[in-house]
Amino acid sequence: MTIEVDYRFPAGVDAHKQAKIIAVGQTVGTWDARFAHREAALRSHLAEVVSVQTETETGHSLATIRFPKANVENDISSLLTMIFGKYSMAGAAKIVAVRLPETYGHSPKLGIKGIRERLGVFDRPLIMAIFKPALGLSASDHAAILAEVAHAGLDIIKDDEILGDLDIAPTLQRLQACRQVLDEVKQKTGRTVLYAVNVTGTADRLLEKARLLVREGANALLLNVLTYGFSVLSALASDPEINVPIFAHPAFAGAMCAAPDYGMAYSVVLGTLMAHAGADAVLYPAHYGSLPFDPAEEAQIRDILRSRGVFPIPSAGIHPGIVPKALTDYGQDVILNAGTGIMDHPDGAAAGVQAFFEALERVAQSQSFGPESLPPGSLRRAVEKWGFSDNL
Amino acid sequence: MTIEVDYRFPAGVDAHKQAKIIAVGQTVGTWDARFAHREAALRSHLAEVVSVQTETETGHSLATIRFPKANVENDISSLLTMIFGKYSMAGAAKIVAVRLPETYGHSPKLGIKGIRERLGVFDRPLIMAIFKPALGLSASDHAAILAEVAHAGLDIIKDDEILGDLDIAPTLQRLQACRQVLDEVKQKTGRTVLYAVNVTGTADRLLEKARLLVREGANALLLNVLTYGFSVLSALASDPEINVPIFAHPAFAGAMCAAPDYGMAYSVVLGTLMAHAGADAVLYPAHYGSLPFDPAEEAQIRDILRSRGVFPIPSAGIHPGIVPKALTDYGQDVILNAGTGIMDHPDGAAAGVQAFFEALERVAQSQSFGPESLPPGSLRRAVEKWGFSDNL
Repeated sequence: MTIEVDYRFPAGVDAHKQAKIIAVGQTVGTWDARFAHREAALRSHLAEVVSVQTETETGHSLATIRFPKANVENDISSLLTMIFGKYSMAGAAKIVAVRLPETYGHSPKLGIKGIRERLGVFDRPLIMAIFKPALGLSASDHAAILAEVAHAGLDIIKDDEILGDLDIAPTLQRLQACRQVLDEVKQKTGRTVLYAVNVTGTADRLLEKARLLVREGANALLLNVLTYGFSVLSALASDPEINVPIFAHPAFAGAMCAAPDYGMAYSVVLGTLMAHAGADAVLYPAHYGSLPFDPAEEAQIRDILRSRGVFPIPSAGIHPGIVPKALTDYGQDVILNAGTGIMDHPDGAAAGVQAFFEALERVAQSQSFGPESLPPGSLRRAVEKWGFSDNL
Repeated sequence: MTIEVDYRFPAGVDAHKQAKIIAVGQTVGTWDARFAHREAALRSHLAEVVSVQTETETGHSLATIRFPKANVENDISSLLTMIFGKYSMAGAAKIVAVRLPETYGHSPKLGIKGIRERLGVFDRPLIMAIFKPALGLSASDHAAILAEVAHAGLDIIKDDEILGDLDIAPTLQRLQACRQVLDEVKQKTGRTVLYAVNVTGTADRLLEKARLLVREGANALLLNVLTYGFSVLSALASDPEINVPIFAHPAFAGAMCAAPDYGMAYSVVLGTLMAHAGADAVLYPAHYGSLPFDPAEEAQIRDILRSRGVFPIPSAGIHPGIVPKALTDYGQDVILNAGTGIMDHPDGAAAGVQAFFEALERVAQSQSFGPESLPPGSLRRAVEKWGFSDNL
């Protein structure tokens, strides 16, 4: 079982030379006669250049390197150190694909199947909202917002990723206030609504806090994986006390993915690495919105996540009018995550949620989204505000 | 007390518009009349655009934004989420400076002063080596290498950053084998030699392992901060059981720093963030070696680290012949870290260490490094192999 990595170099770089530098420099390094007695062991840890190809059109080169699995610890952090640690500082090179053994790292504890079971929803996309405004509300403000959207039929809500454990609305207080609403919805309707609570802090406190939150009734967690560390995600994923889905947020991904010739592809970081680090569901930019995101890259993330049973959550630019297009791109196994697309509905957040369900129903009936054909109501009001993308 | 961040945009970007997007989008977001009752609280969490300037020569713009400290949790992870989380995915922008309150985050437990006290060396640069080859040696091989360099006068040795807790040489076994050598040197000479043991694993296990290693006699730790997470470094730094210096390795820094117009400057990640996350000593690329590193950026890292009492460790391209130039650039408060520059000395690793001490002595005496003027011995042999940079 080996690990294969594709490195892309811009035109003008000697990719054959660089590939050899990576294969040796990111593993054993060189050795001399003094280590002849360890020759076999040393050789077994060397990486191997599988192929080097140059794209004639762009002049880019692609080098595939195969690393021994024995060099790493079956986690993402040691993998990143090996495949790009020192070499990331060596010049222009971008990791565009990582192929790992299926058993590498963690699988989701719950993933698509488990999240659907918790919610009891099996036959449609899930609708997710984000608390807005992001900062400055109290715990009871959060509960009031949640009451609106949860009673309107929402499946999942999450904290904004920048809302940490702050004095104005401490994490545990937010959970306790919102938990009452969730319990009430459950009692009245039998429906489960998940609230992904943002878990933060230095690694030791974060892990303790996550366990405390779960004990206090949190039924989902949100983690900013890239600012806290893949080692934290994997710790949560392997912790038996954390028996709730972990929603992975892509905050900071652009710092390591957005540059054309440096860092790693979004599909590697938000697809492959998240899916092998134990995330149950992963948020990432959709190309529907204002973020400059390539539809092909987005499709790759979707496919990589699904191949390991992880729920894809395209985000940014999601509003009720985008539902036909989103379902064409994603089918049913998707979580549609709207921030302003729910919270800023002209008739309020509950209407935002209703508009999404009207939209799902309309797509199921193959009905048009043209505003003139829409009956008066939440969906029509949403489409009047944000437009629509008819794509049936 | 506020947090100020400088964002640099390439020519053609409307920096005024982007600065406003950051100030609002990375904090509260927008709100409407429904939240009028929280107006004051919401306003208090908004960031503020301090200035936007355009460099006439390059067309680059620089926007300075001031964030309220109340939005974050006095750590690096929440800081990164706020200043660059979602926005990192919005297009070309690079964070080139972060100014934090002095009390933000962690200070080093030991730093320059504490490391010097542990070693009992106050009046010269420290000499540090790296175990090579990086992978494939047994624990006893490590001990044999350590015996050579430690008896030759070395101050500090570290694991290669890619050597994790692997079957061929488990971390605890490496420590136990090397600890015997360290004890022997101490008994015979009274000298302390630090061995920075690479601490790895998922966050929970890593923290446990770090405590175990310290209990078992580890007198320094090495952490790949960027692949494991700043939250892990801060957890180690704030753990009272970890009463040994933490050496921070820059592996993966290039993925977020190397691109000209994306990510963050090396001086921010390896300087400001490391120094406020609790590192005692930080390795980073020196411009002496083959890595494409800017001397001005290197000088900034040095100055930022020293301003918080953190030991700078310029690495890559360090060999005995570079000592005059390194001392001109750094003075005494520096750790000179050589991998091959010690281990590949033509007469062996002990000679590599001796060559460094001969070099320090020669600089102290203002003597030339011209090979013809060097007496036969380790330094001369090193200079014949690697050259020299006379800079007295």
